Formats: sequence, structure tokens, C-alpha cells
Amino acid sequence: MQKTTFSREQSFPLNAWYAVAWDVELKRALLPRTICSRPLVLYRKADGTAVALEDACWHRLLPLSKGWLNGDDVTCGYHGLVFNADGRCVFMPSQETINPSACVRSYPIVEKHRFVWVWLGDPALADPAKVPDLHWNDDPEWAGDGQLIYLKCDYRLVVDNLMDLTHETFVHAGSIGNQAVAEAPFDVTHTENHATVTRWMLNIDPPPFWAAQLGKPGKVDRWQIIHFEPPCTIAIDVGVAPAGTGAPEGNRSQGVNGFVLNTITPETETSCHYFWAFCRNYRLKDQRATTELREGVARIFQQDEDVLEAQQRAMVANPGREFYNLNIDAGAIWARRLIDNMLAEEGYLVPAAAGD
Amino acid sequence: MQKTTFSREQSFPLNAWYAVAWDVELKRALLPRTICSRPLVLYRKADGTAVALEDACWHRLLPLSKGWLNGDDVTCGYHGLVFNADGRCVFMPSQETINPSACVRSYPIVEKHRFVWVWLGDPALADPAKVPDLHWNDDPEWAGDGQLIYLKCDYRLVVDNLMDLTHETFVHAGSIGNQAVAEAPFDVTHTENHATVTRWMLNIDPPPFWAAQLGKPGKVDRWQIIHFEPPCTIAIDVGVAPAGTGAPEGNRSQGVNGFVLNTITPETETSCHYFWAFCRNYRLKDQRATTELREGVARIFQQDEDVLEAQQRAMVANPGREFYNLNIDAGAIWARRLIDNMLAEEGYLVPAAAGD
Amino acid sequence: MQKTTFSREQSFPLNAWYAVAWDVELKRALLPRTICSRPLVLYRKADGTAVALEDACWHRLLPLSKGWLNGDDVTCGYHGLVFNADGRCVFMPSQETINPSACVRSYPIVEKHRFVWVWLGDPALADPAKVPDLHWNDDPEWAGDGQLIYLKCDYRLVVDNLMDLTHETFVHAGSIGNQAVAEAPFDVTHTENHATVTRWMLNIDPPPFWAAQLGKPGKVDRWQIIHFEPPCTIAIDVGVAPAGTGAPEGNRSQGVNGFVLNTITPETETSCHYFWAFCRNYRLKDQRATTELREGVARIFQQDEDVLEAQQRAMVANPGREFYNLNIDAGAIWARRLIDNMLAEEGYLVPAAAGD
Repeated sequence: MQKTTFSREQSFPLNAWYAVAWDVELKRALLPRTICSRPLVLYRKADGTAVALEDACWHRLLPLSKGWLNGDDVTCGYHGLVFNADGRCVFMPSQETINPSACVRSYPIVEKHRFVWVWLGDPALADPAKVPDLHWNDDPEWAGDGQLIYLKCDYRLVVDNLMDLTHETFVHAGSIGNQAVAEAPFDVTHTENHATVTRWMLNIDPPPFWAAQLGKPGKVDRWQIIHFEPPCTIAIDVGVAPAGTGAPEGNRSQGVNGFVLNTITPETETSCHYFWAFCRNYRLKDQRATTELREGVARIFQQDEDVLEAQQRAMVANPGREFYNLNIDAGAIWARRLIDNMLAEEGYLVPAAAGD
Repeated sequence: MQKTTFSREQSFPLNAWYAVAWDVELKRALLPRTICSRPLVLYRKADGTAVALEDACWHRLLPLSKGWLNGDDVTCGYHGLVFNADGRCVFMPSQETINPSACVRSYPIVEKHRFVWVWLGDPALADPAKVPDLHWNDDPEWAGDGQLIYLKCDYRLVVDNLMDLTHETFVHAGSIGNQAVAEAPFDVTHTENHATVTRWMLNIDPPPFWAAQLGKPGKVDRWQIIHFEPPCTIAIDVGVAPAGTGAPEGNRSQGVNGFVLNTITPETETSCHYFWAFCRNYRLKDQRATTELREGVARIFQQDEDVLEAQQRAMVANPGREFYNLNIDAGAIWARRLIDNMLAEEGYLVPAAAGD
Repeated sequence: MQKTTFSREQSFPLNAWYAVAWDVELKRALLPRTICSRPLVLYRKADGTAVALEDACWHRLLPLSKGWLNGDDVTCGYHGLVFNADGRCVFMPSQETINPSACVRSYPIVEKHRFVWVWLGDPALADPAKVPDLHWNDDPEWAGDGQLIYLKCDYRLVVDNLMDLTHETFVHAGSIGNQAVAEAPFDVTHTENHATVTRWMLNIDPPPFWAAQLGKPGKVDRWQIIHFEPPCTIAIDVGVAPAGTGAPEGNRSQGVNGFVLNTITPETETSCHYFWAFCRNYRLKDQRATTELREGVARIFQQDEDVLEAQQRAMVANPGREFYNLNIDAGAIWARRLIDNMLAEEGYLVPAAAGD
């Protein structure tokens, strides 16, 4: 039994790539979005490359997203100052000389795996190779789609939720949850920047969702392998195969396999943008299946949304109360530890007894 | 002339029975309700007895009221922890050993006079004999009904309101208020845990409400005898009798008598649950009269609701402003004093010049 | 390039006349309105003179505006205390002696130029001659009308907005804004309690609004002369005349002239009541023109409302961020300085580097 207290200073590191939008959200138009308490304005240049600027004019703070695109530059909607994609002011009204210090911050930005990622911390550390691995989202061997959910809760509550799928038995009874999940043992392993929870349920009755995906009667071997990459990305390898066909040993050829991709970007200390997708390696060209799966998973996640926002309100209504940990929280404890390591490295206050 | 300032620390004692629900509100289902800033979950066991538990799971704080009843126990809707009616955890998912410290608080609870009462303070002091006397509410010699009103104001503003019925003349002109109330003298008496305000209006024209109840023409003797039991229960003995038939001397046989029962449970420092009932000792079997009186009194109380919530907003809009007292506030001053005595006994900050 | 920081203590002086209502708003009824964080109740006496009282009963703080007029006095809607137009309590329920200290504040009030003005500071300084000059609003040589707009922003953001009309080019393109405004040079002059910004645009194409007002084709000479009287009144002399007909030298006889009258009364630190009118010296008897101009200007101001409220939200979302100043802000800098002088005189904290 262990206790977790909450970091007081800041709950999210800044030296990390955060998903800020689905690629299709970015157009030749100004999109405001706040991540990690920083208001950003996002857009694409004429050549399609993405731009992320601080969303507050240097002059009088009006959000630049209230202005308009001017070629690849942004014009402020109040007094017409123009900033280029590097954030440098290139026009001031009624004066010829432009103060060389006049600028807004421009953030490193990359597109990868159908998401747009922004780096808010030290730009010198913004290595595109560090973008979390969600390759299933644009791999031709996989098909799928997802959504963006806005949640009024600390992003780490979503991480806790995904690191322990025992909750499926209680929150998602009737779809993906059944008694087997809560009963099955699991293993947790970790490295310096990765934590993995592995759970196999052998020779069980499949829950309704997976029975429908497999399309064959009979017992199954079911797996859930949760890969966590700090601070907020979780790829879950899930699937079932007919019992005894060798899936635990590596032969999944008789089964169906999906990846639930999740990356949860803090908006503030108590709200977040939750990007997810569900990708499968079967019926790749069945567009109807893609739609049905996206809608089906969305319905399941709505049950989590209700729980997570109620949990956040309960934290506020019960000040001073701590979280206690169960055996099932071993994965979440490691996820929190890896987040805390990043926070400590950036100098933020780290909880005294963070699940130790 | 006297001044009242406001306690800074806490406005409600905890060593007291507070009404938390009408008896009919409690069923074989989970009911969330916050009193004295403490979120509770309420339900009945199979044998009908009432239960009040802390409404936050020991594990991750999710309100237990988001879960479900499991026999006489409650299952958390997130990870399936089960708590029995004593608040002890009796099931944890995926583990056999249950931490003996895993529990939520269970509060002393009793049913009396059609209300359910909870004791939040020291359980050793929770003597059921201390439940406030509202026996008219289930006495066969009396008939009546009432409601629960939610008010966005400090519960003590409702106490002030009820301890001085002069306001009837101004707030309730046209129903129960008339000039006589504001003009009539009154007496205030008190003991260590009781304050009483007595007002007789002799040989007056009855206000419309009472004229209708009496059903006879002519002048009346009218009485209002307010009984306050700290911190928040007020039973008001009200009625009229034909003038000169001996009511002031104790012979009320020619008149009609009602009791306005009130108990006002704090929800937070600035909101409360106001339980009230109106009971009469005439036309006992006339169910239509019960309904009409409940609806009629509810309409009258709506006028108070508007005043009380405006008063609370005014306190916020005028920081540092104090209440001044008039002669009519003598009863309210004693009520506040008895409340303050309870607060002082529990160690809360008591106002420096609380109406002395 | 200059910086402005924000005063922490109070942003508005109290020794000033503030517009509290249009004259037509005050009737034989109680009107609540908060200015400078002080809730007021306003009404007219039987003889038509205006009254402004503190809107909180001496006794229990209920807003007097929840009560009713009683001749020239106000009766509190809770316990019936009566206050006369001087704020003195003249009736208390159930007692004959009235505490001589029982009163609410009564504020100096005058009507001038179709507005009602209140003085919240030292009454000894409340000289009616100090009411800001907005005489065009009831001068027979001028015709016009206006409105009251409620804005969720610091009143000084509106002052900034009006002291620099460069924003017309960007916020009001298509009506009154064109490139000439942003390009034209301007002069700023000031005295101890007045700042003036003068801009002439010679031989330009008139923007659509002014082309319609003039009703003649061809180039024009256009002027904008902004008169600021601290803390919050701005009269803007605007107009156009056919180019070369002598307007810059003082002969406006071939042109059309308007005055945009503005006085922006703080409600709180982050909200204000913005009173404005547009008066013209042509087509004086054309009531349709009055209506069209009022509606047309209102549409233009709606564009400012969106910008100003977004700017206020941005100040909250970007704590610690300062305003930087451009050349175009020279008028706003002087306005802020004159406001700061008033604040300093009243002892409020004044920003360290207020635009110097």
C-alpha cells in the first residue's frame, strides 16, 4: 500500500513534444489552442508547413488568433502589427523603424503520425527523433481513426486510467470489460523512459466487443500490453486469438490485433486535450469498420470522461486528501515516477512520497 | 444598537445533529449530498436502516455515489472497491489481502420526526436524544407536510430571518404580514441551549392567510412563539383565536394552531439545505388542506429566498461591512450567541463583538 | 519603445464625476448600478431631482433597490427601515428611537449634457463645474443620440482604444477605417488635465461612412481631433470637407462635422459602463439620420467590444506580461499619465514605469 501526493508547482514538464492538433485540424487559417497554460495560435504556411506562435500580440496582448493570415505572416486584428512565422514583427503601423526586440515566441513544431507536435521548453533540445512512437496511426499495415476529447481534469488522471485496465471491469462492463480483466495477473517492467504493463488472459470467454471483432465462437487468449512513454503517451497493444493457437508465444496469426493510441496534452493544471486513435491490422480496407470502431471506442471513452471529471471535482472537494495505491496501480506508479523524474529535472517541486 | 461581525474560520459546529434528508428521500439507491462542506453518500440497507458514508473512495477519491449498491455495501464505480456500511473496505480488485486501514468515514445517523439526521463531529458524543424536537411532524395530533429548499446563503441568515418575524410585514405583505406584527411588542427569554421569542397581537384584524384558516369573521388574538435550538432548528408556534376567547391565558380551543418547523443545514459557508414543514392541529384528515398549506407556505418562502440570496450577495459586494442590530433583532442576537458558544467550544474563531 | 505596467491597488480615482446613467434611465423607480466597485441605488424624487444612495441597508445589507420608493424616501424590502434622500434613516420597525448614526451614504449627483453624474470621493470637492464637457449632447446646434454599452474590461482599455484611432484601419476596415488613418502623422499636446491628439489626412479618398455623410464625390480633407479629460472622458471632433476648401485652416463650411462623445465609467477593475453619443452639425432635423447614425456607430463599436474583451481575457491569460508602446500610443500614454496623476494624488499605487 502506498500513497501519492500531488506536485504543487507544475504537473507537466516543458521539455517534451506535445500533440497540439490532429494534422487535419491545421489549415490556412488561425487556430487558437492553449497547451501547458500557454495560449498558442496555429496555422499552415502556403507551402503547408505548420507554425505555432505565442497567441498574444507583443504590443497590447490581443490574441493574434483574432487577426488574420497575411501570406505566411499573421496580422494583429487590433493595430495591424505583422509577425512572420518566426515570430518577428515585420510591420508596425505609422512608423518606419521596427523595434528589433518586437516579437512573439515561435515554437518548434513537427508533424508525425497524423498529429502535430509542439515543443514548449528549451528549443535547443527539440529533437524531432524524440516524438513519441505512434506509427500505427499512419502505417499502411494498420487502419484506423480517432478523435480529440476535451477533459476537465489533470492529464495524469487519464494516464492513471490507461495504465490500469482493471477499471474496464467496472466502468466498461458490457463492452470491453469482464471479470477476467480484474482477476488476471500482470507484469510491470520499466526502463529510464518507458514503462510496460503486460496482462494475458488465457482461455477466457471474450467480452462482447472482442467477440464481434474476432467473428469466431469459442474461448480466446486475450492480451493487453500497455506501453507508456513519459510524460503522456500510451500505446496499448490489445487483441484476442482463439485459445491455444499460440498467441502468448508470439503467433497471433489466428487472432485480431488493435492498438489504442493515446496522448494526453495538458491544457491547464486541471484540463487536458486527449488525442486518441484505434488502429487494427485486419479488414484494412473496410471503411465502415473504421467508422464503427471509432464511434464504438468513443462511446466507451465517454464512460471514462464522466469518471475522470468527477474524480477531478472530488480532488477539489476533498482538499488534503491523498491517493492510496493498490497492487493494480503498479503501472500507474511507474508512469508517475517517470513524469516526476522529468519534473525534477526541470526543477519543479516533486511530491515527497510519490508512490514509493 | 449593536454590531455583529462574521466568524472567519467556520460558521457551523460539527458536534450537532444535522438534518440531511427527508425520510422519503432515502431509498435503496445512492444519494449524494454535501453538508458542512463534507460530501456524503446516503442510502438504506436492505432492512431499511439509513447509512451515511464519506462520498470519496479511499483509493482514488471518485465519489462512491457514482458507483452502485451491492447488497448493503457500496461498490466504487471506478475500480470496484467495495465498502460496507461501516465504511470498511471489504473487496479490492486483483488482490486478496485488504489493507486494514482502507476505509471511508461512516457517520452516526438516525431517523426522527420524518427527517434523517447525521452527526459529523465526535461520534462518542452522538447521543440520539439530542436530536432537535420537531415531534409535531409525526405526531398523530398534528397534520402537515413540507419541503426542502436549496439556498445560496449562509445558514445563519435564515436563522436571523426566522428569529425576527417583523419582516413578515414587509416581505410578506398580502399573506401573513400586516402592520400589527411590526408594531407588537415581544419578549425574549433564553437558557443555555434555547432561546424563545414571544409575540402576542391582541384584538387585531387577521391577515388574509389566518382569516382563511380560522374561517370566522372578526378580530383575533394572534400569537407567534419562536423556539430556537442551536445551531439551526426553529419551531414556531403560530395561530389565531377569536379575540377575547382566552388564548393568551392558555385556552386556544376556539382558535387554530400551527407549527412552522425549520431546520437549516449548512452545505458550505455560503449555501444551505433548508428543511421546513407546516403542521396544524385542525382539519387533520383534510389532505387537500395539507397540500394547499404546503404550497401556500412554499410561495411565501419564495419571497424570503429572494431576499436571503440577495443579502448574501450584498455581503460579498460590501466587504468589511458589518450588520447593525435593532430592537427587533434581540432573538437573532441570542441565536447567534448560542451558535457562537458552540463554535467556541469546538475551538473555532468567534467574532469579537458578536452582538453584545 | 516604452512599457506600461498595471497599477495594483486601484485603477480609478474617486474624486471625479462619473456618468452613472443616461438621464432618461432615471425614473420614479429604484435602479441599481455599481460604479467603481460601489453598489448604488438611483432614483428621482417627486420634483424630478436625482438621488444616489449606497445600495445596502444599514441594518442587514439587503440592497435598498430590492425595496420600494415611499414618496422621496426608500423603504428597505426586508425589515422596512426607511431612508430619506440624504441617506438618513427616518423609520425603524418596532421602535420609536432611531439611532442617529443609522444611515447609508448619499452621493453628490448632478445632471448635465443628458447624463447623470455621481461623485464618489470627498463630497467637499464635488464642484458641478468640474463635470466633463460634453455639451454637444444637448446643444441646439448639434443633433445626435447614443447608447450605454456594458464591457467586461478595464475602462482604461477603452481609453487606450479611443486615444489611438489607428485601430480603425484594422478593426473597422470597410466603415470608417482606411489606410490613410494608419499612415497619417499626428500631433499630441497636453496640459495638466487635458490631452489632445490631432490628425489631418489631406486630399484622401473618404472611407465609406464619411463619403455617405458628405454626399459629394471627390477627395476630402479629413480630421480627427481627440480631446481627453481624465479620468475617462473623450470627445472626438471628426469630419471631412472637400479637399482644398480650407478645413485645416479653419473653414469647415463645406464639410460635415461630428463629435463622438465617450465617457467610460468603471464598474469594477475589469468591467465598465461605456456611455457614448454621436452628434452632428448637419441635417439637424433629420430624425432618421439620428437613428441611422446611432445604429451605424453601434455596429462599429461592436467590433471594438469583441477586441477589448479579448484583450482583457488575454491580460488574465498572460500574467506578468506588459504592454509595449508604439509611436501611435503617444496619446494613450498621456491619458494614462493624467489618470496616474489622479491616482497618485489619492494615494493609490502608481505603476513604476508608466509609459515613460
